[in-house]
Amino acid sequence: MTQLKHYQQLVIENLKDIFAGYKAEVNDLYEPVIYALEGGKKIRSVCVLLTADVFGGDLNTALIPAFAVEMFHNFTLLHDDVMDNSFVRRNRQTVHAKWNVNQALLSGDAMMILVYQKLLQLPENKLKPLMELINKTALQVCEGQQLDMDFETVLNVPIETYMQMIKLKTAVLLACSLALGAVVSDASVQDVDEIYNFGINLGLAFQIQDDYFDTFANSDVFGKKIGNDIVANKKTFLSINALNLAQGDLKRKIEKLFLSQTKNPEGKIEEVTKIYERLNIPEIAQKKIEFYYNEALKNIELIKGIDTEKKKILYDFANYILKREK
Amino acid sequence: MTQLKHYQQLVIENLKDIFAGYKAEVNDLYEPVIYALEGGKKIRSVCVLLTADVFGGDLNTALIPAFAVEMFHNFTLLHDDVMDNSFVRRNRQTVHAKWNVNQALLSGDAMMILVYQKLLQLPENKLKPLMELINKTALQVCEGQQLDMDFETVLNVPIETYMQMIKLKTAVLLACSLALGAVVSDASVQDVDEIYNFGINLGLAFQIQDDYFDTFANSDVFGKKIGNDIVANKKTFLSINALNLAQGDLKRKIEKLFLSQTKNPEGKIEEVTKIYERLNIPEIAQKKIEFYYNEALKNIELIKGIDTEKKKILYDFANYILKREK
Repeated sequence: MTQLKHYQQLVIENLKDIFAGYKAEVNDLYEPVIYALEGGKKIRSVCVLLTADVFGGDLNTALIPAFAVEMFHNFTLLHDDVMDNSFVRRNRQTVHAKWNVNQALLSGDAMMILVYQKLLQLPENKLKPLMELINKTALQVCEGQQLDMDFETVLNVPIETYMQMIKLKTAVLLACSLALGAVVSDASVQDVDEIYNFGINLGLAFQIQDDYFDTFANSDVFGKKIGNDIVANKKTFLSINALNLAQGDLKRKIEKLFLSQTKNPEGKIEEVTKIYERLNIPEIAQKKIEFYYNEALKNIELIKGIDTEKKKILYDFANYILKREK
Repeated sequence: MTQLKHYQQLVIENLKDIFAGYKAEVNDLYEPVIYALEGGKKIRSVCVLLTADVFGGDLNTALIPAFAVEMFHNFTLLHDDVMDNSFVRRNRQTVHAKWNVNQALLSGDAMMILVYQKLLQLPENKLKPLMELINKTALQVCEGQQLDMDFETVLNVPIETYMQMIKLKTAVLLACSLALGAVVSDASVQDVDEIYNFGINLGLAFQIQDDYFDTFANSDVFGKKIGNDIVANKKTFLSINALNLAQGDLKRKIEKLFLSQTKNPEGKIEEVTKIYERLNIPEIAQKKIEFYYNEALKNIELIKGIDTEKKKILYDFANYILKREK
């Protein structure tokens, strides 16, 4: 979608101006901030600009919350990488790997403050509504990360709790970003709700698909090596459903596999994948993705304040996110 | 000061109501938040209520920024304790010692968001000015922590850089808290500036005195063991001045002492203390404390919007902070 590329370019140019401002500051605090904001697809800020445009709002005003959600998202990645002890992101060192944990902690904290610093540039009547939405979302993302952390110490996670976790950790920020653009453009409360729910459904479909692709995708399409989640014993839509559906010997076998630290990753991936197939997990995942995708399309239908042409942009965006582009 | 006790009580009661709200949330995220807010003297929130009262403002409105600065301050302590690997604060385990580092990181992040969550309760015309002040201050505190971190890897720190560090790390939040109360009460821009500068000068005097007491106080008064900074090779107003003033053999001796990990703390404390005395460091520190104390009193004099009786409350507060109460 050339329109998305245009939004992405706008975000990147805007970030450059802001980086120039940070560089003027004589403080080591900001170098990791600039580093953390480099790269990535800028999906969340693109969301803000997309809906601002669709609802006929001012893109310059929309760039303010677009920057804020981009800053917030990269702040969470920075601190999450510390918590997960991950050393690589976007094909290069994470901040705590390149500097150290304390620097990652402190520069991350500064990013959180810079989210709100940016919001202060909003027109006075927009500050409170946008901040309310961002704040609520930011707390939910922390709650999602908390649930994810809690999962590490238990074997059996109810699928509803997993869905709640991915909703909080992934879907709400996508939904918030889409809603922010609509609020900037003075969309009606009902339309803001629909666009928000569109984001939730799209985010859930995206995350289940991400889990699915980790085991079943063609690695050319997915861009990551297959089977990482299986080797890392990660709780995913697939692993949780498999644990819930398996019975007797098979259940005990899965439990044993999911608790083991393997020296033969290829063998483990093959074994778990076969069990998933035996339990029909790929179909269950595909159905769920389709369900949320269709729910998202229904949300678009229900939006009142935009015409068919604009709705087409939202459809295309959903297909882009779910890699259904033709 | 009974008035301060009254403010402190107000803050503690207000916090209790907020805790009740958090406890209703079914998420492990908030337990460490409540824990981190317990105890302490609540000096910063008391500052907000004090100036709000002095300038004739509404204490209920002032409780909103009072909560915000208290939350922010305890958030910085929580993350600082992780960075410093400190296991004890307020005579009990720090959050990362009681839970773990990841929990401390995540609950700290949530506290930062709760600062702004609280500010959203402000009357609409107060949100932006108060947020601007808090944001600027929050970034400065991070910059101060960055300077402090940078000090760890160098032996010679210019005294001006040290003063800049304690200004950013300690004084600006005290100044901000005092100014917030004045802004809530619609004090004039000039008076807000004076009360802010009063806070800066008081904060600097306080921090130098804190450094001084660590070596020279009667431990009954100070409440901490004497000589901690010396044993930990911490950069302080005393150590930096000693390094700058000493020459030749004495300089080399100090440098060696400040780089050593001693097995005889009592001996090291005695040795360094004698050098401080030989270099007249206690007098230099006392003079500097006196200088900033007098500057703070001048700031009070220059405030136009309050009468002598109210000014007396500010004088008493300065004496309380610097333990000059009769």
